[in-house]
Amino acid sequence: MKNMQPGQVTPLNIEYKAVIQNKIDQKTKPLGSLGQLEQVALQLALIQSQKQRILVDKVSISKPTVIIFAGDHGISEQGVSIAPSAVTRQMVLNFLAGGAAINCFCRSNNIDFKVVDTGIIDPIAKRHKNLINYRLGAGTKNFANQSAMTEIQVEQGLSYGKQTIEPLINSDCSVLLLGEMGIGNTSSAAAILSALTKEPVELCVGIGTGINQEQLTLKKQLITQALARFDSSDPKTILKEVGGFEITQMTGAIIAAAQAGIAILIDGFIVSTAALLAVRMAPNVRDYLIFAHQSEESGHQLLLKTLDAKPLLNLGLRLGEGTGAALALPLLHAAAHFYNDMASFKSAGVTV
Amino acid sequence: MKNMQPGQVTPLNIEYKAVIQNKIDQKTKPLGSLGQLEQVALQLALIQSQKQRILVDKVSISKPTVIIFAGDHGISEQGVSIAPSAVTRQMVLNFLAGGAAINCFCRSNNIDFKVVDTGIIDPIAKRHKNLINYRLGAGTKNFANQSAMTEIQVEQGLSYGKQTIEPLINSDCSVLLLGEMGIGNTSSAAAILSALTKEPVELCVGIGTGINQEQLTLKKQLITQALARFDSSDPKTILKEVGGFEITQMTGAIIAAAQAGIAILIDGFIVSTAALLAVRMAPNVRDYLIFAHQSEESGHQLLLKTLDAKPLLNLGLRLGEGTGAALALPLLHAAAHFYNDMASFKSAGVTV
Repeated sequence: MKNMQPGQVTPLNIEYKAVIQNKIDQKTKPLGSLGQLEQVALQLALIQSQKQRILVDKVSISKPTVIIFAGDHGISEQGVSIAPSAVTRQMVLNFLAGGAAINCFCRSNNIDFKVVDTGIIDPIAKRHKNLINYRLGAGTKNFANQSAMTEIQVEQGLSYGKQTIEPLINSDCSVLLLGEMGIGNTSSAAAILSALTKEPVELCVGIGTGINQEQLTLKKQLITQALARFDSSDPKTILKEVGGFEITQMTGAIIAAAQAGIAILIDGFIVSTAALLAVRMAPNVRDYLIFAHQSEESGHQLLLKTLDAKPLLNLGLRLGEGTGAALALPLLHAAAHFYNDMASFKSAGVTV
Repeated sequence: MKNMQPGQVTPLNIEYKAVIQNKIDQKTKPLGSLGQLEQVALQLALIQSQKQRILVDKVSISKPTVIIFAGDHGISEQGVSIAPSAVTRQMVLNFLAGGAAINCFCRSNNIDFKVVDTGIIDPIAKRHKNLINYRLGAGTKNFANQSAMTEIQVEQGLSYGKQTIEPLINSDCSVLLLGEMGIGNTSSAAAILSALTKEPVELCVGIGTGINQEQLTLKKQLITQALARFDSSDPKTILKEVGGFEITQMTGAIIAAAQAGIAILIDGFIVSTAALLAVRMAPNVRDYLIFAHQSEESGHQLLLKTLDAKPLLNLGLRLGEGTGAALALPLLHAAAHFYNDMASFKSAGVTV
C-alpha cells in the first residue's frame, strides 16, 4: 500500500486564460450573456490545455463516467437515518439492476456507470460488470463511541479511490461524475465538515433524506460527542475518527482524477465533503472541480461557501447517488458545443 | 383571418393527479427527493394524459422543437439597445447558418429548429428549410410616439403564431421551446409587463443585453411616455400599443400549443412576457407552461412571480434565442426517464 502523494496535482496554466476568454468573448452574443456556462467552458478549456500542455482548440466531453461509492456506517445503528443499513445493499442491487434514479439519468444523458462496494455490511456475492469490490470492511465502526476507521483503512481507502480512476485514464475519460450511497453518511459528512471548518455542529447537520426532529437532535448530539474525542484538522485523522469508507475512497478518487487532468463534476453534500477533504490534502484539486448542484441538505451551502463554489443547478434535490452530477452533465456538453462550434462576430458578419 | 378563440385550452384533469403522484412516490428514493424534477414529471404526465383522455403510463418527449420568432422594433431607433436593428437580420442569418448559441444547444440536445421572420426590417431573400416567412411588416412603429402595430397586425400575428404550431401537431411534437430575436424587444416586453400588471415601469425595465445608465434612463422615460397614451389591461390593446411582431406571434403560438396538448418550455424575459399575455387571454394555458430559466433581466423575476413560476435553471443567462429553454430540455428528458423506468420499492425489493 502506497501513501498518497498529495503534491502532484498541477495548477492550471493561467497564461492560457486570456486567449480562451477572448475566444469566448468573440462569439456572436453579448459579452458574458451565457453566464455560468462561459465559466464552465473556460474551466474545461484550461483543464484540457493543462493536460495536453498546449492550448486546446476544442473542448472534449469524452466518456463521461459516474462512479458511485457505496459503504455502510456504524453510526446508523443509532437510528439517525430514515432507513436501516440494509437499504445500502438493496440500493446497490438496484443500481446493478438499472432501476435507480441514477441509472435513469445515466441512460438519459449517456453516462457510463460503475458502483464500488467500499464496505457495505453484506457483500454482493455475484460478480457484475459494473461492480467493483474495494471493500475496507463490513461497515465502519460507530463513530459516536470510537474511531470509525483505522489508519490502515484510511490509507487503503485513498489508494483504492485512486485505483478506481485508472481505467478512466486508460479509456480517455475527460469528465468524472461522483456519487455515493450509504445509510448514515450525512452524519459522517456533517462531522467531517465541522471538524475541517471548525464551524458549529448545528450549522453542519441537516435532516438527510428526511429524519424527524428527535432524530435530528440525537444526530447533533452524537456528532458533538464524537468531535469532543479529538482535536485535529488533518484530513486523514478526521477520516479515521468520523469518516466513511465511501467518503475516503471518493477523496482519493478526486485527487487522482485531478492528477490525471480529468474534470470532476461534484454531486451534493456527501461528495462535496470528499471534495473539501481532497482540497485540504492537495489545494490545486480545486481547479478541477465543477459543482453540479445545491443540495437541500443544510450543511451544503456552508460547504460550497468554504470552497467558493456556485453550483450549476438548484432543483431541490436531496437524493445523492450522483443524480445532481448526472443532471448537470448536459450543461458541460452545451458549454463544449458553444466553445467549439459557435460563430464569431467576424465569421458570422455580425456588427459588433 | 380568424380571431383566436381563447376559451379552447382544456384545463388539466386533476383526477389523475393522485395516481401520478403515487407512482412518483413509490419510486426507490426518499419522498420528494428529486425536487423540481418530480413536479416536471407530474406536469408532463398530466398534460399528456389530458391530451390522450386517458392516464398515460409513460411520458414522452417526442420531437422537441425550438421556434425562434424574430422581428424588429421601431423603438430601437431611439438607441435603447447595445446594437442596431441590422443585427436582428444578421443574427437570423447566423441562425440559418447554424452558428449561433441556440444552434449549438440544439445540436447538443437534439432539438429541431425553426426561425420565423415575423417582420425584420429587410427580409431574407433566399429560401431556407428552417425559415418561415410570416412577416407583419418591416419592423413595428416606434411605440414611444405612436401605436407599435395596427389591430389587424395583432390579429394576423396571433393567427400566424397559431399556424407555426400546425406542423408540430402533425409531427407529434410533445414539447415546444420558444425563443426570440429582436433588437429593442426588452423595451417592448417591459412596457407590456408594466401595462399588464400595473407595476411601476422602474421595476419592469432592465439593462437588456447590456446598455449603459444613460440608455437605461431613456428607456424608462420612453416606456413611461408610451404607457401614458393608453389605459388598458387588455392583451390585444397592449400588443397594439407597445408590442412586437415576435411577441404577438409567440402569444398565439403558446395558446395554440396548449390547445394541442403540447408542453411549452418558456425561455427568458421576452418569451415569459408572451406567456403572461397568453395566460391573460386564456388562463388554462398556465397548466401547460414549464419555465426554463431565471433571466438576469430585472423584470423577469417580477414576471415569474406574477405567473407563480419557479424556473428550472438560474445560470445568469441573458441571451434570449431560446437558449435557456434548450439548456433546460435535458431536465425534461430526465424527468420522463425516471417517471417511465425507475424501479418502485416493491419491484426493487427495497425496504420502505
